[in-house]
Amino acid sequence: MNSFGDSFVFTSFGESHSAAIGGVLDGVPAGLHINFDMIRQALDRRAGRGQHSGVSPRALREADEVEWLSGVMDGVTLGTPIAFLIRNRDARPEDYEALKHSFRQGHADSTYAAKYGIRDWRGGGRASARETAARVVAGNIAAQMLAEHGITIQAQLVQVGAETAPELFDEQIRRYQAEGDSIGGIIRCQVTGLPAGLGEPIFDKLQAHLAYAVMSINACKGFDYGSGFQGVSEPGSIANRHSGGLLGGITDGTTLSFRCVFKPTPTTPKALEQMVNDQIVNRSDACVAVRAVPVVEAMTALVLANFLTIAQTHHSDNNH
Amino acid sequence: MNSFGDSFVFTSFGESHSAAIGGVLDGVPAGLHINFDMIRQALDRRAGRGQHSGVSPRALREADEVEWLSGVMDGVTLGTPIAFLIRNRDARPEDYEALKHSFRQGHADSTYAAKYGIRDWRGGGRASARETAARVVAGNIAAQMLAEHGITIQAQLVQVGAETAPELFDEQIRRYQAEGDSIGGIIRCQVTGLPAGLGEPIFDKLQAHLAYAVMSINACKGFDYGSGFQGVSEPGSIANRHSGGLLGGITDGTTLSFRCVFKPTPTTPKALEQMVNDQIVNRSDACVAVRAVPVVEAMTALVLANFLTIAQTHHSDNNH
Amino acid sequence: MNSFGDSFVFTSFGESHSAAIGGVLDGVPAGLHINFDMIRQALDRRAGRGQHSGVSPRALREADEVEWLSGVMDGVTLGTPIAFLIRNRDARPEDYEALKHSFRQGHADSTYAAKYGIRDWRGGGRASARETAARVVAGNIAAQMLAEHGITIQAQLVQVGAETAPELFDEQIRRYQAEGDSIGGIIRCQVTGLPAGLGEPIFDKLQAHLAYAVMSINACKGFDYGSGFQGVSEPGSIANRHSGGLLGGITDGTTLSFRCVFKPTPTTPKALEQMVNDQIVNRSDACVAVRAVPVVEAMTALVLANFLTIAQTHHSDNNH
Amino acid sequence: MNSFGDSFVFTSFGESHSAAIGGVLDGVPAGLHINFDMIRQALDRRAGRGQHSGVSPRALREADEVEWLSGVMDGVTLGTPIAFLIRNRDARPEDYEALKHSFRQGHADSTYAAKYGIRDWRGGGRASARETAARVVAGNIAAQMLAEHGITIQAQLVQVGAETAPELFDEQIRRYQAEGDSIGGIIRCQVTGLPAGLGEPIFDKLQAHLAYAVMSINACKGFDYGSGFQGVSEPGSIANRHSGGLLGGITDGTTLSFRCVFKPTPTTPKALEQMVNDQIVNRSDACVAVRAVPVVEAMTALVLANFLTIAQTHHSDNNH
Repeated sequence: MNSFGDSFVFTSFGESHSAAIGGVLDGVPAGLHINFDMIRQALDRRAGRGQHSGVSPRALREADEVEWLSGVMDGVTLGTPIAFLIRNRDARPEDYEALKHSFRQGHADSTYAAKYGIRDWRGGGRASARETAARVVAGNIAAQMLAEHGITIQAQLVQVGAETAPELFDEQIRRYQAEGDSIGGIIRCQVTGLPAGLGEPIFDKLQAHLAYAVMSINACKGFDYGSGFQGVSEPGSIANRHSGGLLGGITDGTTLSFRCVFKPTPTTPKALEQMVNDQIVNRSDACVAVRAVPVVEAMTALVLANFLTIAQTHHSDNNH
Repeated sequence: MNSFGDSFVFTSFGESHSAAIGGVLDGVPAGLHINFDMIRQALDRRAGRGQHSGVSPRALREADEVEWLSGVMDGVTLGTPIAFLIRNRDARPEDYEALKHSFRQGHADSTYAAKYGIRDWRGGGRASARETAARVVAGNIAAQMLAEHGITIQAQLVQVGAETAPELFDEQIRRYQAEGDSIGGIIRCQVTGLPAGLGEPIFDKLQAHLAYAVMSINACKGFDYGSGFQGVSEPGSIANRHSGGLLGGITDGTTLSFRCVFKPTPTTPKALEQMVNDQIVNRSDACVAVRAVPVVEAMTALVLANFLTIAQTHHSDNNH
Repeated sequence: MNSFGDSFVFTSFGESHSAAIGGVLDGVPAGLHINFDMIRQALDRRAGRGQHSGVSPRALREADEVEWLSGVMDGVTLGTPIAFLIRNRDARPEDYEALKHSFRQGHADSTYAAKYGIRDWRGGGRASARETAARVVAGNIAAQMLAEHGITIQAQLVQVGAETAPELFDEQIRRYQAEGDSIGGIIRCQVTGLPAGLGEPIFDKLQAHLAYAVMSINACKGFDYGSGFQGVSEPGSIANRHSGGLLGGITDGTTLSFRCVFKPTPTTPKALEQMVNDQIVNRSDACVAVRAVPVVEAMTALVLANFLTIAQTHHSDNNH
Repeated sequence: MNSFGDSFVFTSFGESHSAAIGGVLDGVPAGLHINFDMIRQALDRRAGRGQHSGVSPRALREADEVEWLSGVMDGVTLGTPIAFLIRNRDARPEDYEALKHSFRQGHADSTYAAKYGIRDWRGGGRASARETAARVVAGNIAAQMLAEHGITIQAQLVQVGAETAPELFDEQIRRYQAEGDSIGGIIRCQVTGLPAGLGEPIFDKLQAHLAYAVMSINACKGFDYGSGFQGVSEPGSIANRHSGGLLGGITDGTTLSFRCVFKPTPTTPKALEQMVNDQIVNRSDACVAVRAVPVVEAMTALVLANFLTIAQTHHSDNNH
């Protein structure tokens, strides 16, 4: 289904070339003052404006203007569902016409057809990265709610290909782009200000929900936290030190820290050449990890907003 | 909460030293013949019987006898909830008495206390690895249901510390155990026989649910699939080849393959010495990844059984 | 929350005087041809066009034009979420300005303020009957899906006040309206073509979900089925005969039949006079049960579409 | 499925003649002192001990002894799932042997067979009223939690057949029993001490959840609240006065009051005679409404406990 969360629920809709994409955010408490500039900035980061190179032309052309349909009055939330949409003004199905009768390698085209028996071949339909714009809007509202509780989320690119020096990332991406190729990246996300006691012990461990949230982003291939995969060769007497902010699925009051890895875009010009002989305008990014940063933040905010709601319940229960 | 899944739901209960642990499995179709021997074998693997060294004494002593309460008649499922329990016969709270007033480093003791304001100090309560026995029972029933559809799940240890040669794993574990220390490990899980089209495109991507399921196991610190973390330095023109059996969150009909990493047990004898001066019998394992193998299989089976149920719905919808 | 269903999910948004009301319908299978005329007709019945008298002026003025945002291409569903909106073009907050500082008797104004600490006083906010237009759109799509399985839903007014002769309903309503008063009504809903075996035995009995769905409509005060409240004085040897189409929570293959009762509109001109001395244009209906008929059908369709999805799962399980 | 609630979740298991029935209650806060005597008294009322006549022999024979498996230590809840079971010690499948090859009229036997393709013919399986014992245990724990917040739930029989004078109920029931027949009844349930603001405006109206909960009890045929079905003939200027404690789906701080109707037991001796010629010991009740009283209270408590949890969340949100 297309909803995320149970107490703080985001429902996403829209294909990349339908009239609009958008969402409904249910569970936001009444009385929150929305900072619309912050939402626009997050959308600009997702669109790749003023960022690293290698961003697709469509992303730069389209200014994602959010139309607010409900749930907000004079910039303040009403406690009712917040619905919003972003028009797909730049939809150009003709660019994708050439793909109508062929499946792109490494794309979800073939699995979608297997699943639904019908295929909206226009721009990958729901599989398009464009769907993440709605996540960024909803996640940013969640982040603003968290900020009122002193919680701050910050993600950043920490590796591009084999490169781990941030000052060289841009150069690295440009090199792959020049070769008509693409490259993967690793993002680290850190959350400060979390109270101790957030998360649940068994299935609803906070790391399980964070993994679920982040792995639901297109092109994400892995998640780890604390000592992670790198810690496998450290003995127990040392590894104890890297909790990543969580013990037994529950925050311990220190900084939460996790990583996630994004594969290179599969639709490289190189790959496409072999398919349809240059008939297609490539709209993909040389390093999708760049634009995934605000999406990782958004999904993290949605998870935490959901857990904060649950946690507040337990706290008030304890206080009676 | 303590339930997993929505169409095929496992509810887990029990503290490590309460009267019993157990579970309720809801959504199993009527008419499935249960192979009780297979369940016992999976429990034996979880308990570490006849396996690699480094297994805790309690695990070997206790034969996990499953008592079936409902949902099965003459070995055949009724379509009603299957409830079962495993008595905690070897509960020895006195072993943990010394810990009553101290928090163990790297354990969830402190976060539990922060969360609930009360602490069942006997054996870590719900945080104990013993809770995973109930997961193995439920997951094995799920696996038997999947087997009827030709789906097979197999997990195995592929790395212990820095060691990747399976024939040296046992020796490696023994060495850490002899030093009173512990070590982490990586498990690879592979699923064959999956139909194409399983999974959902946006939030309910199959990899997101697998990550959620596996990250909910104690001591698990990371998950990846396909090219994963290792593929970050490969350009897009190469990385395409490692789909891991999934495209856009949906199975493509090839073998599904993912990895997960388990940290070393934090309660090493070395660490405990510093705390309570040898008053405690250590029950932990030198390499928890060994016993996590059937738990990873169990959680994978629960995820797939849930998705298979959903998938069958879509297929029958398409067929009308 | 503002979502209904778990396998076939309708999410509703919009206040009566926000930019728009609308919804997202998730779980509709791909390939369904939408009949937009049928949706318009259901909306017209909800708006009271060409119906019994006593309908509020706003309802007649506003043509509810549905704008389709996603999920449909060339009139055929894609299997992705169907999002739609209806603009609130006739929003006239000034009509409600006089109510800003007073609570209307029998309305939800006071309970909303108690709950949220903030109040959107413009037209009752979410409590407005206008929200049901979105239910009618979503429910009609569900009904069209059900019709493909041979299932037909039909509701009708069977009582107005004490009157049970349909040919006298219109006269009865006019009389109360002329007196500046309002009156309640009873609706019977019947469903034909249901397969036997729909519903679940314990909590998810079909009648429980129908009751939940119907009782979620504004002004609905009761639900019964089969022999219902009227059958209380019949001995068991007689009452057996009126199953209402359900046994043990599951359809028996006969016609499903239930009733629901709607109270008279609380905001009668008579009541309002006492409050704000004729400063308010009354927009309410003399008998809300009239316009509730298509809403009852819509909610019934949403319940059945959800159960049909679940039922198909069980059937395909049995067939392997 | 067999779970009820989302934040305060009761999962039920057990057939009437399996090894045990029981449940898991998840979401109870830590630190609640359980009064086991209150639970036993509620179970005795459900079993019909010391009550109106017409109670089935099995109900009187079996003392429902609750075995606590987890979640409680020294009589205090741990915040972990509370699992319990009640053994089916009096299971006598031979009584039902005669029914093995015939469906009882008015019972769920036929619909179950249609649904599952397999039938546990022993005592109606899950459809048995015995399953309600587990509801009473869980509901009573919920009621004890509510009592700590000053909330009291009390249900009582207000009508038996056409009789509304409580002092004549016993005589009325005896008369039908003597004739080998059965009779229906109406229960009124009242809740005092509820804070204003409990419930949700759209689908999760409190009355909708109460209707769902009560209609999930075997033999319940209808639900109404406030003016209900009886108020249909009252004009709006009068009906306003009977809110039933709810406005717009949310509590208004006054006493909550609803009614529900139970049909007569379908398996009367009269009906059975025609089927198997006296070979069966009838275990059913002449008026099931009598024993339904504590079950109605239990389901009401489960609904309110779930909403209280949600409400506390909103309140704490508002207070930051």
